[in-house]
Amino acid sequence: MITSNIDPQPADFADVRATNLSVVLRFVRDHAPCSRADIAAGTGLNKATVSSLVADLIERRLVREIGLTENRVGRPAIMLMLDGAPYAAIGVEINVGYVSAVAVGLGGERLLSWRRAFEAGQHVGEGIAAVAAIIRRVVARMAKQNRQVLGLTVAVPGLIDAQGAVRLAPNLGWRDLDLGGDLAKALRDPGFPIQVDNDANLAALAEQRFGEHAGATDLVYLTGEIGVGAGVIMDGALRRGALGFSGEIGHIQLDASGPACRCGRVGCLEAMAGIGALLDTVSGAEVEEIERLAGAGDAATIARIESVGSNLGKGVAIVANLLNPSVVVLGGFYVPLAPWLLPALETELRARAIAPEVTVVASSLGLDAAALGGAARVLDSVDSGRLPSVT
Amino acid sequence: MITSNIDPQPADFADVRATNLSVVLRFVRDHAPCSRADIAAGTGLNKATVSSLVADLIERRLVREIGLTENRVGRPAIMLMLDGAPYAAIGVEINVGYVSAVAVGLGGERLLSWRRAFEAGQHVGEGIAAVAAIIRRVVARMAKQNRQVLGLTVAVPGLIDAQGAVRLAPNLGWRDLDLGGDLAKALRDPGFPIQVDNDANLAALAEQRFGEHAGATDLVYLTGEIGVGAGVIMDGALRRGALGFSGEIGHIQLDASGPACRCGRVGCLEAMAGIGALLDTVSGAEVEEIERLAGAGDAATIARIESVGSNLGKGVAIVANLLNPSVVVLGGFYVPLAPWLLPALETELRARAIAPEVTVVASSLGLDAAALGGAARVLDSVDSGRLPSVT
Repeated sequence: MITSNIDPQPADFADVRATNLSVVLRFVRDHAPCSRADIAAGTGLNKATVSSLVADLIERRLVREIGLTENRVGRPAIMLMLDGAPYAAIGVEINVGYVSAVAVGLGGERLLSWRRAFEAGQHVGEGIAAVAAIIRRVVARMAKQNRQVLGLTVAVPGLIDAQGAVRLAPNLGWRDLDLGGDLAKALRDPGFPIQVDNDANLAALAEQRFGEHAGATDLVYLTGEIGVGAGVIMDGALRRGALGFSGEIGHIQLDASGPACRCGRVGCLEAMAGIGALLDTVSGAEVEEIERLAGAGDAATIARIESVGSNLGKGVAIVANLLNPSVVVLGGFYVPLAPWLLPALETELRARAIAPEVTVVASSLGLDAAALGGAARVLDSVDSGRLPSVT
Repeated sequence: MITSNIDPQPADFADVRATNLSVVLRFVRDHAPCSRADIAAGTGLNKATVSSLVADLIERRLVREIGLTENRVGRPAIMLMLDGAPYAAIGVEINVGYVSAVAVGLGGERLLSWRRAFEAGQHVGEGIAAVAAIIRRVVARMAKQNRQVLGLTVAVPGLIDAQGAVRLAPNLGWRDLDLGGDLAKALRDPGFPIQVDNDANLAALAEQRFGEHAGATDLVYLTGEIGVGAGVIMDGALRRGALGFSGEIGHIQLDASGPACRCGRVGCLEAMAGIGALLDTVSGAEVEEIERLAGAGDAATIARIESVGSNLGKGVAIVANLLNPSVVVLGGFYVPLAPWLLPALETELRARAIAPEVTVVASSLGLDAAALGGAARVLDSVDSGRLPSVT
């Protein structure tokens, strides 16, 4: 029997208009200030179509006119740029010891960036209440700025299924939790969509949109938290796998005679190359102390970081061989230790990678990359045509 | 700076028609015999549009009418099915010791399946001449059947870059070879496109279209030749990575104290779980002998196969954790040994996979899966709208 690998999906003219609206929106974001003629020339759409699409975007307050251009040959043109003043996208990360919240405008401008302590082991209901309280304060702040919240995405370190349910977040002690639904209830149906996603997936989205290698089509992000997870972008989009569980690199075995892992296995990447392999208790303060010692040239500390770097290099080599990304971005606590981690990592990677043309960098997005990625996911859905309706 | 993750790609009405032509073509392939009304109901396109699209497909001899339906309520309708009688898609696999050639019709029906001896170590020019000679005979056979060749894809075990050049095929002794260009020259510009792709990639395409798990959106194929490579399908399409080199699983290290690999490294998957770990010289005859011994209950042989199965399970666990496929298909020489390989593989996989919901099966496509995949890639380009023009 022959089956089709793609279900028939006919295009129709409504799709065409939605697609073209988002094409124009993205063009303005990337090229502002620009005129209608610039848009027509840059996208290949004809001028009448562009005028109609721009009128629609202005009505939705996604784009605005900013007056005439001055120094240009020919008739002066009205220039356009993103408006977005009435909108905000929110991202929240829940992790061991902290909750981060980020709000950004339509163009990605940072409106707010908070980090609060969060007790991982507490009762689930109390944890949700604590997260909801933070979200309420972010939403109130946006309301004060007269911004409509386009959506919220929550980053969780664990297995999140395709429906957004938390199947297992071992380091938070969560299992089979409808976190999005529970938060919507706690927020009393806030009127914007709430999505839940894996922290590494969202951090990868943040890198793709805001990072040093923004726009890379094949990029892998490795979280450097208590757990190590990968966010996999191939051909320009997150690849989640059949059930949404891709990127579970933390428990790949690096060494059959390696140390015991918290998961019960032996020699896992997380046990050998996670931040827990370096620290007794994972805390920002302790990482700062390690960084200070290494910076002062303490040989024992540097040797410990380099050993973690070598082990991480083995993991990155697996990623490089299997996925062939152009960039691997290290996040979390790996970032401050990168000066000592990266050389050791590179040595191991070059020895193991079949195609060694891969760039490994520390994230430039800071510790709230996953939260920022939550906001990026909201902006992605605007980009792909889910525009806010005219109010 | 904010950069767009997708270049603006406006849709236009010519795109819509090409898309809808391929939607109708795929619908007919999957649901034939069917009427124009069935197509309208199944695709959501309106009846006038369907009539116009069907007329176009009939003119291109991709679809044909097969008379009226009989036992149906209401007015009898003219039924349609794939025509494609005038077309053929060709796939060729070059590997250690053999060349396979497959030709299929538009609906995937097998027209021809050949396998010839091929000397891997010979001079490059002689190798290309030998492959060209086989292709010429396939094309002549198709011409005799009055079939136009839509395209040809050649499968090669090695690193094939995004432009289709063979960067490195160690087991064939090839490096930096414009195989497609050289074959086109040897065939004196045959008038159909020639593409070159990695053998595992093409075998994955064959599984996606013709295999037991056809239609799976997240599927990984593992070749069981002298080398072990992976073809990675995620979200319904091959994912090749930044340079086209994804799926290089063969030299991922399984054991730091494992056996030496031909690549100079130690404990590679290929050295521990490749067919070379089981055989002294890889040949069909020797695999048959191993199969016979295992079938007769020879304990030593079974233990050797199980050891390879365990090692392969470690590799499959890496794939499962990083990519979360729903199906992993084992090909090549793994197929006849599957009864003894799979149980050992499963045990290791369950112990190591974070999300163990993955099905591992032996390919049902036989030894020419990669060649068949070459033909599938030609059909894929028809499906995605590159229809043969009206002659």
